Amino acid sequence: MATSEPRAAGGDQDPNSANLRPPTTTNEYAWMHGCTRKLGMKICGFLQKNNSLEEKGRLAGQKNLLSCDNSDRDARFRRTETDFSNLFARDLLPAKNGEEPTMQFLLEVVDILTNYVKKTFDRSTKVLDFHHPHQLLEGIEGFNLELSDQPESLEQILVDCRDTLKYGVRTGHPRFFNQLSSGLDIIGLAGEWLTSTANTNMFTYEIAPVFVLMEQLTLKKMREMIGWPNGEGDGLFSPGGAISNMYSVMIARYKYFPEVKTKGMSAAPRLVLFTSEHSHYSIKKAGAALGFGTDNVILLSTDERGRVIPADLEAKILDAKQKGYVPLFVNATAGSTVYGAFDPINEIADICEKYNLWLHVDGAWGGGLLMSRKHRHKLNGIERANSVTWNPHKMMGVPLQCSAILVREKGILAGCNSMCAGYLFQPDKQYDVTYDTGDKAIQCGRHVDIFKFWLMWKAKGTTGFEQHIDKCLDLSQYLYNKIKNREGYEMVFDGVPQHTNVCFWYIPPSLRGMPDGDERREKLHRVAPKIKAMMMESGTTMVGYQPQGNKVNFFRMVVSNPSATQSDIDFLIDEIERLGHDL
Amino acid sequence: MATSEPRAAGGDQDPNSANLRPPTTTNEYAWMHGCTRKLGMKICGFLQKNNSLEEKGRLAGQKNLLSCDNSDRDARFRRTETDFSNLFARDLLPAKNGEEPTMQFLLEVVDILTNYVKKTFDRSTKVLDFHHPHQLLEGIEGFNLELSDQPESLEQILVDCRDTLKYGVRTGHPRFFNQLSSGLDIIGLAGEWLTSTANTNMFTYEIAPVFVLMEQLTLKKMREMIGWPNGEGDGLFSPGGAISNMYSVMIARYKYFPEVKTKGMSAAPRLVLFTSEHSHYSIKKAGAALGFGTDNVILLSTDERGRVIPADLEAKILDAKQKGYVPLFVNATAGSTVYGAFDPINEIADICEKYNLWLHVDGAWGGGLLMSRKHRHKLNGIERANSVTWNPHKMMGVPLQCSAILVREKGILAGCNSMCAGYLFQPDKQYDVTYDTGDKAIQCGRHVDIFKFWLMWKAKGTTGFEQHIDKCLDLSQYLYNKIKNREGYEMVFDGVPQHTNVCFWYIPPSLRGMPDGDERREKLHRVAPKIKAMMMESGTTMVGYQPQGNKVNFFRMVVSNPSATQSDIDFLIDEIERLGHDL
Repeated sequence: MATSEPRAAGGDQDPNSANLRPPTTTNEYAWMHGCTRKLGMKICGFLQKNNSLEEKGRLAGQKNLLSCDNSDRDARFRRTETDFSNLFARDLLPAKNGEEPTMQFLLEVVDILTNYVKKTFDRSTKVLDFHHPHQLLEGIEGFNLELSDQPESLEQILVDCRDTLKYGVRTGHPRFFNQLSSGLDIIGLAGEWLTSTANTNMFTYEIAPVFVLMEQLTLKKMREMIGWPNGEGDGLFSPGGAISNMYSVMIARYKYFPEVKTKGMSAAPRLVLFTSEHSHYSIKKAGAALGFGTDNVILLSTDERGRVIPADLEAKILDAKQKGYVPLFVNATAGSTVYGAFDPINEIADICEKYNLWLHVDGAWGGGLLMSRKHRHKLNGIERANSVTWNPHKMMGVPLQCSAILVREKGILAGCNSMCAGYLFQPDKQYDVTYDTGDKAIQCGRHVDIFKFWLMWKAKGTTGFEQHIDKCLDLSQYLYNKIKNREGYEMVFDGVPQHTNVCFWYIPPSLRGMPDGDERREKLHRVAPKIKAMMMESGTTMVGYQPQGNKVNFFRMVVSNPSATQSDIDFLIDEIERLGHDL
Repeated sequence: MATSEPRAAGGDQDPNSANLRPPTTTNEYAWMHGCTRKLGMKICGFLQKNNSLEEKGRLAGQKNLLSCDNSDRDARFRRTETDFSNLFARDLLPAKNGEEPTMQFLLEVVDILTNYVKKTFDRSTKVLDFHHPHQLLEGIEGFNLELSDQPESLEQILVDCRDTLKYGVRTGHPRFFNQLSSGLDIIGLAGEWLTSTANTNMFTYEIAPVFVLMEQLTLKKMREMIGWPNGEGDGLFSPGGAISNMYSVMIARYKYFPEVKTKGMSAAPRLVLFTSEHSHYSIKKAGAALGFGTDNVILLSTDERGRVIPADLEAKILDAKQKGYVPLFVNATAGSTVYGAFDPINEIADICEKYNLWLHVDGAWGGGLLMSRKHRHKLNGIERANSVTWNPHKMMGVPLQCSAILVREKGILAGCNSMCAGYLFQPDKQYDVTYDTGDKAIQCGRHVDIFKFWLMWKAKGTTGFEQHIDKCLDLSQYLYNKIKNREGYEMVFDGVPQHTNVCFWYIPPSLRGMPDGDERREKLHRVAPKIKAMMMESGTTMVGYQPQGNKVNFFRMVVSNPSATQSDIDFLIDEIERLGHDL
């Protein structure tokens, strides 16, 4: 569908869906426009008369509210009345005379975005406005997702931007608890806006000098927090925790069987990997992808709290050896996805040392606790790991994506992955080419994930992250204390959660007297999905649920959202009870 | 270092590095602020008197230039005088009363970014301001990259933003030709800003309903362009071409040897992969990572233009079979990295069919030509491929990252990668869970790469991409015509380039009379790096160079930047001659 007539966006109340169609009479606008313009000129004149050139120059770079038309190349852009219905992408920069429409278009987009940001934090707004896939595909309220051969006007593009936000999910809303990544950090957001404006690539210092150095310094700081001497070692930001975990398996294999790089897995004996049955599925994915096979990813038993039982690890290592397999790699989880459990790293490290195995710590979710003096003891022993995954985009509130793979041994990432592509990594450049990071990665181009994180660290300091983390853990303890003995609730495991994960069943009154057994289990299994569906349809809050092992569906509450408060926890509980009472 | 006193940014001329320190007297500002504020009130009053409530409501959602303080929750934010030196990240949302500082901070950032955008397109600005790593690490002109425990003021954060851009590389500058990805598309930029504001994740429909559907529709459209019947098939956006290529090898292996997923590579015979010696190094990286081994990635000979010789493929398949190896996979490159060569897909497809091999087309660079009626014939036969990599972030000017892996057979991505994580992909959700894409991916969390691309497609139409591509190819032909017989130039291969890659040596006068031989080769090998270093130090333009096979360092010019014109091509040639004349 090609049209320059914008389709109407639904919902008159929401400015994010306001129709941009110009009013029938525009006299008021003309008047306003002329007026502010005149005032701008007047102020210009005033400044020119009353300030020396030097002062004026200084002012221009600082805080003048109005730009003097054409008088100053560094002037700020001012939003003016723009009719976007006759403007198209081809009218923007680099088009001739494209500067003004470009600035007006970007400022209009920013207006949409800042309104969205404001509403994200407003508890009187919904977390989401749920629609089924077929409803959105049918073009709900004129929001047409289909692509066409012909361009659409910028007016329509702005409507599309509003609609995209309108039908999305506000992951920064104080009542969004659905994912380990939540919240909308303003500094991080600014960092992402800048990153996309810089639009470059991490593979060489040549085209990302500042970002490459920021990555290097930040990784060093993270390694210091892990406790590796002088923060020495290596690392990279990768496109997510699953890829970071995949790196750890690759480099472990390279460390012990470097010939696999050239000769393939047939050059190695049958290698086995160990990880907890509560660990993230990415270890199994890595096992499948890298040619180990999921059968050779051996799952370790856990205690009632979801923590690996070290004796089980040792028994399974011995069993594997007895079968003639070669144990290679152990993953210890620091903050499991569902229970938030921290495996006992020191005890696992003892076993890894004894049998000469690679120890990886998957701290995608729990790594952030290293920032907290109060909670970092949960990762005791992490300094003995050979590699660590740590996702600042989870517990530290950095916008997606931001995941690091950190490695104790320097040079092994490059050893494992380098292919020495001549067209990128020329040895005869004028600068120190050890700063080119691309050949360490399994990627070629690599997105700039560092800047937002670096900027947040600058703006908050380590202490700011610490406060955020402590607050989230306090909130989850508040929730735990509130429901542990409350009528209608059963905890999935006993005791204060190690991380912010609080796992519980809500038992509707109709099930409270029922004896345990298949019937009750089947009924209880359907409670969380039903409440969740109603939550989403009413748009009031979002929280995850899942079964685990032989446990039927339960809610997994997590707190990583900096905007959540006790009142939001209270709200969640009220909402579960409101929606679940009659089930 | 922790300080609330912002460090000075270097370069007084550049507003991106202007010092934000407040002036010693602020009377002028107070006057200005009061004045515009008063005018705002007056206009407010005017509107209130002269418009019905309904009209006012309509206006509020549309184009009013000034917000009436507190009168309208949907009002636009206006930049006001803000002293950021006493503001910190903790004062922003979700802090109490954080809305105003948040909006002022974001608008200040946008001011920095829009100034940067404007300058990016300005030929009177430098492409980069080169510094060596040690210079930046030493904290050049007060730009301190080190992180600290204590927070810094928002004033300092704004200075850091300016400095980050100042010392970076303007990849959208009309004279940036260094990479296959270049340019700064304004619609794409707006799309990225929105994406980071939405800050969500592609793994489930639940939290990315609109983006998941956009991805689905866009992939279908791309498959239609490839020529698969009704656009059927499968696909994903991945974090880059190397990962997309890795997917292709994984799914080929799964198709023929699905037991590898569970049992590992030992369950399969010795498998070999074929790719051209001119192909991207990611095929070899995939071979290493996935457990094939680089020795089992067999490189195919090419003709003088860098295109695979089909007879060589067949000979090498037969040779491998004779050795008892099992040929599995052939990669045909559509647009090689250095020469821009298109392998003859139809002839390769014939051989793949004959020997029952998986055919992958790496169109990371050349896939965009499918959008052009004039150039798409270069990919003839692509509809016979089993999988295709296509990076809109290269030839189509979409901001980084945006890469698709497209697969002809539906369901095989999920078959290959699914691990059925219960906590994400609950089968008992209220919506059609076939829309949850996460279990198809090797990633868990997946960045939203689709929106910017979808928005650009909406805004330009297929025809807009076609015009961009045709223009870039025209420009490269202009360059080719200009230098092919010019004194001091030698082409690396004969004939009009197939893609925008123009590969050439510049021969300084001192080497022009010299007979071919080792001495001349050694000297010529040093010419391109020297010119490139001088280019970067003067900041005037950037173009890549590399050796290839037995060919000494040559320039590889590529055009994907929409802002480049013939004058920029002329400038590049002038600059090479200016800098290289006396070598």
